[in-house]
Amino acid sequence: SRSLNLAVIPGDGIGQEVVTEGLKVLSAVLPQDVKLETKEYDFGARRYHATGETLTDADLDALKQHDAILLGAIGDPSVPSGVLERGFLLKLRFAFDHHVNLRPSKLLPGVATPLAGEPSIDFVVVREGTEGPYTGNGGTIRKGTEHEVATEVSVNTAFGVERVVRDAFARAQARPRKKLALIHKNNVLTFAGHLWTNIFNKVAAEFPEVTTEYMHVDAATIYLVTQPERFDVIVTDNLFGDIITDLAAAVSGGIGVAASGNINPSGEFPSMFEPVHGSAPDIAGQGKADPTATVLSVALLLRHLGYEAEAARIDEAVSADLGERAGKPARSTAEIGDALAVRVAG
Amino acid sequence: SRSLNLAVIPGDGIGQEVVTEGLKVLSAVLPQDVKLETKEYDFGARRYHATGETLTDADLDALKQHDAILLGAIGDPSVPSGVLERGFLLKLRFAFDHHVNLRPSKLLPGVATPLAGEPSIDFVVVREGTEGPYTGNGGTIRKGTEHEVATEVSVNTAFGVERVVRDAFARAQARPRKKLALIHKNNVLTFAGHLWTNIFNKVAAEFPEVTTEYMHVDAATIYLVTQPERFDVIVTDNLFGDIITDLAAAVSGGIGVAASGNINPSGEFPSMFEPVHGSAPDIAGQGKADPTATVLSVALLLRHLGYEAEAARIDEAVSADLGERAGKPARSTAEIGDALAVRVAG
Ligand SMILES: CC(C)[C@H](C(=O)O)[C@@H](O)C(=O)O
Ligand SMILES: CC(C)[C@H](C(=O)O)[C@@H](O)C(=O)O
Repeated sequence: SRSLNLAVIPGDGIGQEVVTEGLKVLSAVLPQDVKLETKEYDFGARRYHATGETLTDADLDALKQHDAILLGAIGDPSVPSGVLERGFLLKLRFAFDHHVNLRPSKLLPGVATPLAGEPSIDFVVVREGTEGPYTGNGGTIRKGTEHEVATEVSVNTAFGVERVVRDAFARAQARPRKKLALIHKNNVLTFAGHLWTNIFNKVAAEFPEVTTEYMHVDAATIYLVTQPERFDVIVTDNLFGDIITDLAAAVSGGIGVAASGNINPSGEFPSMFEPVHGSAPDIAGQGKADPTATVLSVALLLRHLGYEAEAARIDEAVSADLGERAGKPARSTAEIGDALAVRVAG
Repeated sequence: SRSLNLAVIPGDGIGQEVVTEGLKVLSAVLPQDVKLETKEYDFGARRYHATGETLTDADLDALKQHDAILLGAIGDPSVPSGVLERGFLLKLRFAFDHHVNLRPSKLLPGVATPLAGEPSIDFVVVREGTEGPYTGNGGTIRKGTEHEVATEVSVNTAFGVERVVRDAFARAQARPRKKLALIHKNNVLTFAGHLWTNIFNKVAAEFPEVTTEYMHVDAATIYLVTQPERFDVIVTDNLFGDIITDLAAAVSGGIGVAASGNINPSGEFPSMFEPVHGSAPDIAGQGKADPTATVLSVALLLRHLGYEAEAARIDEAVSADLGERAGKPARSTAEIGDALAVRVAG
């Protein structure tokens, strides 16, 4: 009999609520012979305030034992900006070498978009997850004085860029439209830009069926709102990926339905799956949060572990559920989770 | 009698066409007693191919003699990415200390937007122009090998941040809504983020009437498409400003109408005014380019030099012209320029 040994990190704010529904749907969709084990970890603001810790070496050792990690949301206004982000979220992505940050955007039928017309949106962003301006390199001198200088160093390596570019080409190759766009700012960030562009062009030669294009990040934001149908697969650096995936989420149904995977493709470390939205402390504990993004993150998790049929059942259930929402009264977090659990089991 | 001594840089692609119309409207709106002198400079791809030069010290000395600079567009696919951008555009912004990059976004009546509903958009972005990831600091080692490492260093100084933050507060104070948003990514780029945030908060104390908010750049892209009416004045760093002003242009009528000023507030060096759009080589020379963004850049130029009434006349003419476009056949570049020239003279 098979088993799925999951680390669950509810985190802060609405994290607990949405993760509960994610697990509900996961239990409902998993085949009977798969033994689901979950272990909950209390990371986030509570733990930080109680112990001053965000993520210790012992924590990493414990997390390593799992097949995958499901995360709700981390972040609270009571903690200074950056402490949990750098000390937990990014530390985990770097420690577990989550270099493929996968963020699909699909505008499902019946879902509201801020865009006029009826754009057809179905693309996936492959965001690099372990390099770029996210490394924490840089520093500050003369802090707090009128002579303060603060630097941020974007670090880009051929090794790091090539592996994520290859991953993106393989994904593009496997999709019907076989299109891949590189998004960067190589006319200004010429050092990193040339590295990305050269590797992209080199790998492209090995994928003759994939149609490629290059786009500056500023122009990409325009296309995302005027021609989102243009995109199939996008590969980009860590910071540009952060920015454009929030925009992509906004135009394709909102961050309430945007899922993501922080993937270690080699399987050396467990991958982590999380909704793109944050902890939304303003609505926490009120049953108002939409658990759909977390449920879709569970689908990404299942797909990553080889449960393709189960992942597809979740995607279909979400599609059907979203398609029937218009004009109906808002449901609670648990009601949406219940409805999705019924659909995937049915 | 007064004089206006203008450096004109048509540049590449559609640059020449749109600048011609910009000058046409400028001549039409200027009071009779103002003597307009213009000198054209042949920067851009042609000059680069002919001489290998982008912008020499002698060029800078010549440009320095003018009251202001009007630029069409620089950039051509025949020139490697980055050569003209770093060698001309950015070199000029840095040499003339254009630290206030001003980019207004206003959705005018009758103008199409990709956003559904009828959003009300009227804000201005104050983008820092001489620091951040645009400094060209960084480098490459082991270029072209599998061990290549490329870095980009974002340099941020208290001096540079404070002056642009002060400029933005003063602009917010002068507007009816008196709102200012700082956009950064201080939860990840903690060195630069803390510098920006601390200075923003310090200066805020001197402007008690200005309502402030902080927003991460990724979240800002969401608000720009879901709640653009939320913004009044935005202050942000060079790269974030580049990205969000293209998005802002897209939602508020397109880059065909987006103007910008690269301003040296002290007047030590001439300021430069340019449309946000590029050289659009695909439509160059066909009379298809919309000169409106250039004409609006001329308005920013006039306002900067103290010709407030004339600037307002241009803004009104553009407003009226855009309001009458819907359902009419497309006009040529010159026809739009003619119509605007008639309106401002009338
Ligand atoms: C919270 C923050 C560290 C994170 C990021 O910038 O990657 C978030 O915005 C995301 O996109 O997952
Ligand atoms: C062409 C490029 C150097 C420039 C920039 O990045 O600033 C452009 O995108 C802009 O916004 O003016």
